[in-house]
Amino acid sequence: MRRYNVAVVGATGAVGRTMIKILQERKFPVKRLLPLASARSNGHAVEFMGEKILVGEATPAAFEGVDIALFSAGQDVSRNLAPEAVKRGAVVIDNSNAFRMDAEVPLVVPEVNPQDIRWHKGIIANPNCSTIQMVVVLKPIHDRAKIKRVVVSTYQAVSGTGLEAIEELKLQSRQLLNGGTAEPKVYPHQIAFNILPHIDVFDETGYSKEEWKMVRETKKIMGDESIAVTATTVRVPVFNGHSESVNIETVEKLTAEEAREILSKAPGVKVADDPQHGVYPLPAVVSGQNEVFVGRIREDFSIPCGLNMWIVADNLRKGAAYNAVQIAEYMVHNSLV
Amino acid sequence: MRRYNVAVVGATGAVGRTMIKILQERKFPVKRLLPLASARSNGHAVEFMGEKILVGEATPAAFEGVDIALFSAGQDVSRNLAPEAVKRGAVVIDNSNAFRMDAEVPLVVPEVNPQDIRWHKGIIANPNCSTIQMVVVLKPIHDRAKIKRVVVSTYQAVSGTGLEAIEELKLQSRQLLNGGTAEPKVYPHQIAFNILPHIDVFDETGYSKEEWKMVRETKKIMGDESIAVTATTVRVPVFNGHSESVNIETVEKLTAEEAREILSKAPGVKVADDPQHGVYPLPAVVSGQNEVFVGRIREDFSIPCGLNMWIVADNLRKGAAYNAVQIAEYMVHNSLV
Repeated sequence: MRRYNVAVVGATGAVGRTMIKILQERKFPVKRLLPLASARSNGHAVEFMGEKILVGEATPAAFEGVDIALFSAGQDVSRNLAPEAVKRGAVVIDNSNAFRMDAEVPLVVPEVNPQDIRWHKGIIANPNCSTIQMVVVLKPIHDRAKIKRVVVSTYQAVSGTGLEAIEELKLQSRQLLNGGTAEPKVYPHQIAFNILPHIDVFDETGYSKEEWKMVRETKKIMGDESIAVTATTVRVPVFNGHSESVNIETVEKLTAEEAREILSKAPGVKVADDPQHGVYPLPAVVSGQNEVFVGRIREDFSIPCGLNMWIVADNLRKGAAYNAVQIAEYMVHNSLV
Repeated sequence: MRRYNVAVVGATGAVGRTMIKILQERKFPVKRLLPLASARSNGHAVEFMGEKILVGEATPAAFEGVDIALFSAGQDVSRNLAPEAVKRGAVVIDNSNAFRMDAEVPLVVPEVNPQDIRWHKGIIANPNCSTIQMVVVLKPIHDRAKIKRVVVSTYQAVSGTGLEAIEELKLQSRQLLNGGTAEPKVYPHQIAFNILPHIDVFDETGYSKEEWKMVRETKKIMGDESIAVTATTVRVPVFNGHSESVNIETVEKLTAEEAREILSKAPGVKVADDPQHGVYPLPAVVSGQNEVFVGRIREDFSIPCGLNMWIVADNLRKGAAYNAVQIAEYMVHNSLV
């Protein structure tokens, strides 16, 4: 079996670490792992398959001989270095926002649009975390009943911001429990025991970039510009695991039972739906798992063809690292790399 | 000026304590305050206007001579004792779910339907916390543009459950920060650093009672059965202050600017809406204030006539105690008691 030189750019970040963990868990056919990061991470090492590997500096030359490069170091790094990696023969799977809406770049969730992997020109974009977990559930519903409109409100964990946000939530929680005050650094306001309707930057429409990502990426991944989406994205004091309250209007009528049936057979989805017995997806439980969990599936009685559901996934895994590794696995299994 | 004998039933609970605090803050014309509770609170005292007052046992006889009785001790207590208080000449303002949907009982938010106070037959119901803060904002929008449908997802604080839930969030947060595990007692699952899509009990439709309250109470308070509402109610690890992501479809088109203008003049509403400068309502900030705060007001581009907004209020105050005291104040000012 062929093995591959795999670079992970942003190897010391929350997503990069998870990428390396998942490459190991999935027994990805790695010949050589190259953990890369900025010069600030000089001297850091990561563990992979029982070995310590020094983190290298992410420079153009570092991609010589690399077959697959998983990027998760922010959009500036991706813009600068992804073309350099491609030039040197690597396929880039990029977790940043840099290329997602580029018409020349496929935006892929393997359960939804694996076929788009085939037309890449060197870069394949990994969608935004909150979009990925939603479309995995929307796709089988759309195939059966055609989705007209989605109204989504999110409950997003701090791990989506990065390791420093996890530390901030811990520190502020301790400070407030001890009767002190919280000092915001990573977020513009206290995040501990608070709710921030603010993820990424706002534009003049009053929407945040995160909200626009959910609107636009959903259409591109699903390959259907007619799906109307409106989103409110919200940060909550949870360490890991994004939750979403999703309202779906369809063209064809689906009962809750039918939706449950469809979703129970959908790839990458686990149905956890018995609320009368306390069964529904919870971020603290789902954290560490690769699937997308859905529960609270019920008819929306306010319209003729509507459903409400509650979708939870590990944003570092399915929302980022696992989805990227799945794309790489698809390429390996289909001899595309 | 006439003064009144005011009983507070459930005086040692989270809402009862806040009722007493607000009666004092508002200089309500109290002749005598009677804090009442179950026998379990024997020996407890509350502070009112600088005096310690012993908590009495809530029995039928305790309501002799009472003019106004504010109830917040659960629906069983209300069912048993509210009629006894009425029989003895008191007007009951009841914060429980016992009488809210009773056609003989007005369900009142003073900014929305003060006129309904006038037809009471002894009992006036205080709506559910999550409904109150929503309808204060919906009403002026409805008056101007007629609301067809509302899709709401909530982010509800633990104080809505009671004092023991506040303690549980503190304890579990400490346990988890210290590397331990959380033991759920009040809630069916860990609430610290977690999100529970579960408030009150579920029925066979898959909805919780809390969700049905938002659907049904909204129609009754607004006096318009044509307003379609669908709700997902969710508990979050916040001590106090409920947040709501509210999507509104109207008959007439409103721009975000027009909605902001209407809401800035609406009674009981404060607009906090400049997201590009980090201004939007936050539960940790709003806690302790009586108004309903709204921000993130923006057009919903997924439909021709839609708005999204973010509504936050102190659930113990406007969502319960303050609304009840407002009803009492209206009666006093209009010589209805």
